Amino acid sequence: MTRVAINGYGTIGKRVADAVAAQPDMEVIGVSKTSPSAEAYVTMQRGYPLYIADLAKKPAFDKAGIPVAGSVEEMIEKADVVIDATPGGVGAKNRPLYEKLGKKAIFQGGEKHEVAGTSFCSFCNYEEAFGKQFVRVVSCNTTGLSRLIQIMDQAFGVKKVRATMVRRGADPHDVKRGPIDAVVLNPVTIPSHHGPDVRTVLPHINIVTLAMIVPTTFMHMHVVQMDLEKDATREEVLQEIEGRPRMVLIRPETGIKSTAELKEYAMDLNRPRNDIWENCIYKESISVADGEFYCFQAIHQEAIVVVETIDAIRAITGTIKDPGESIRMTDEALRFTPL
Amino acid sequence: MTRVAINGYGTIGKRVADAVAAQPDMEVIGVSKTSPSAEAYVTMQRGYPLYIADLAKKPAFDKAGIPVAGSVEEMIEKADVVIDATPGGVGAKNRPLYEKLGKKAIFQGGEKHEVAGTSFCSFCNYEEAFGKQFVRVVSCNTTGLSRLIQIMDQAFGVKKVRATMVRRGADPHDVKRGPIDAVVLNPVTIPSHHGPDVRTVLPHINIVTLAMIVPTTFMHMHVVQMDLEKDATREEVLQEIEGRPRMVLIRPETGIKSTAELKEYAMDLNRPRNDIWENCIYKESISVADGEFYCFQAIHQEAIVVVETIDAIRAITGTIKDPGESIRMTDEALRFTPL
Repeated sequence: MTRVAINGYGTIGKRVADAVAAQPDMEVIGVSKTSPSAEAYVTMQRGYPLYIADLAKKPAFDKAGIPVAGSVEEMIEKADVVIDATPGGVGAKNRPLYEKLGKKAIFQGGEKHEVAGTSFCSFCNYEEAFGKQFVRVVSCNTTGLSRLIQIMDQAFGVKKVRATMVRRGADPHDVKRGPIDAVVLNPVTIPSHHGPDVRTVLPHINIVTLAMIVPTTFMHMHVVQMDLEKDATREEVLQEIEGRPRMVLIRPETGIKSTAELKEYAMDLNRPRNDIWENCIYKESISVADGEFYCFQAIHQEAIVVVETIDAIRAITGTIKDPGESIRMTDEALRFTPL
Repeated sequence: MTRVAINGYGTIGKRVADAVAAQPDMEVIGVSKTSPSAEAYVTMQRGYPLYIADLAKKPAFDKAGIPVAGSVEEMIEKADVVIDATPGGVGAKNRPLYEKLGKKAIFQGGEKHEVAGTSFCSFCNYEEAFGKQFVRVVSCNTTGLSRLIQIMDQAFGVKKVRATMVRRGADPHDVKRGPIDAVVLNPVTIPSHHGPDVRTVLPHINIVTLAMIVPTTFMHMHVVQMDLEKDATREEVLQEIEGRPRMVLIRPETGIKSTAELKEYAMDLNRPRNDIWENCIYKESISVADGEFYCFQAIHQEAIVVVETIDAIRAITGTIKDPGESIRMTDEALRFTPL
């Protein structure tokens, strides 16, 4: 059993904790929060020992009736692997602590590639992360792009990728961010950082990306175009994607043509937290003409990297050699309800 | 003086009426509404004679204190040109009336190309509309694309255009439409109808378009990519666009990186109804590499076709031969405040 500590119990950390708890080969030995909150109460319901960075804040937890198991450093000492799910940029500040304690750590996509030195996507470079002390799971957008590019590249060869990310403005619970009525170019310059980020896991891919933020909470929407090396038909592309792990073709018969309808569907199917760990490609959108592939894919920003993080645990601890086996274990344990 | 009747005094019609009234060579002889409304009161403030389709509804206008000048048919009889600014699809039903009365008419982009037989964009095919009885001004998105494509095609040759339209969900006043929290693929299939619509005014252009709707009201955002025939530098592209009528390069020094900030700027500059008749290209976004051009452009859906409609009046009445002269007259009369 791999002992996993989750440093930061927020949007990603709380999902990773549940995903770890569901796996047959790993256990949650603790999670951390900086102050009492709704999520701190959730740790009690789940039975995860709660650790805090600053023990001087313990009285606030005591007053809230939330038991504190100890300091974050104590938590990390008990772990084989730390999942750093702290806000973007904080992971870099935590790295010296993990080094000092000689622990393996997995950072999230909000950190720079250099914080870990190895970026990770289960489909693309599981082997590269094998036995490393530090890896960084790439961001949700980069994961979504990389999965699809890898499949298309292996099947047909990818000459060039052009992708536009229409990003959700805030997560559903987040009442502090916007925009509320604007399309915000993010960045206004072209290309965006996502292309170079894809190249941290697929270095040979020629890719240009653009991004903007819009007033919605549910998912990101990607417009993906690829120039293909080999001639391909729409039918052949569908065959390559159909049945792949973590790839869903949204069936036209569902009538789903948006992000909101898709999240409602995941909720109706009783998915935990309505999470969608897969790339959701709208089947009708898949188009191949003049050597160019096009599709729309929706990416659930809160969920997609969670399953990758679970695989990364097996890669860095060296417990499972074959990425396919880890992916299968992860997904079976989470009991993906078919969409 | 060209006598202009505006059939339909809504989002586009009310703007066209004011733009006609501002021109030295045309006058508003009447506008029409189907029922009393805030806009019907505006006609009184402007002094536009108000006509109604169904005289049986006159008591409702009498009760509201809004004078009615007569029936829509009476209005059309007095006109040289009718601007049909009725909701999409209604124009097709009105065409027999314009034919019966032997009047020239200009339809909007909500109608099919076949309703007029000639589609219109001032930059692209003014000459084609010359002296015609019916023309259709293409939609805001098609106008925005066509203007930019025409400039780039004349300067560098355009091999292929790939464009994504991130469309506003509703106009600011429109409380009945959504979405409020979703990205809606519109359509879910690729390509969208905008590509073929561009070809109604630029038939030789190879173009693929995609579209989605997002929860915002202010403007559409276009991601435009073009494969160019000739080698071009970013500087050369900037030179081609800079100073062109109805093309604005949003200066980085303004700090504007979104649609909402841009509309606020137009409002601060005292533009009537905060209207932006120009293609707004974010200067920083212009990128040229490997023979490919990229940019973001914002398109004000309520305004951009208004100036085109004014030019279309001069084209179909045959009063001005040179499109450049008409564009200059239109824009001077509206006193475009530089952005």
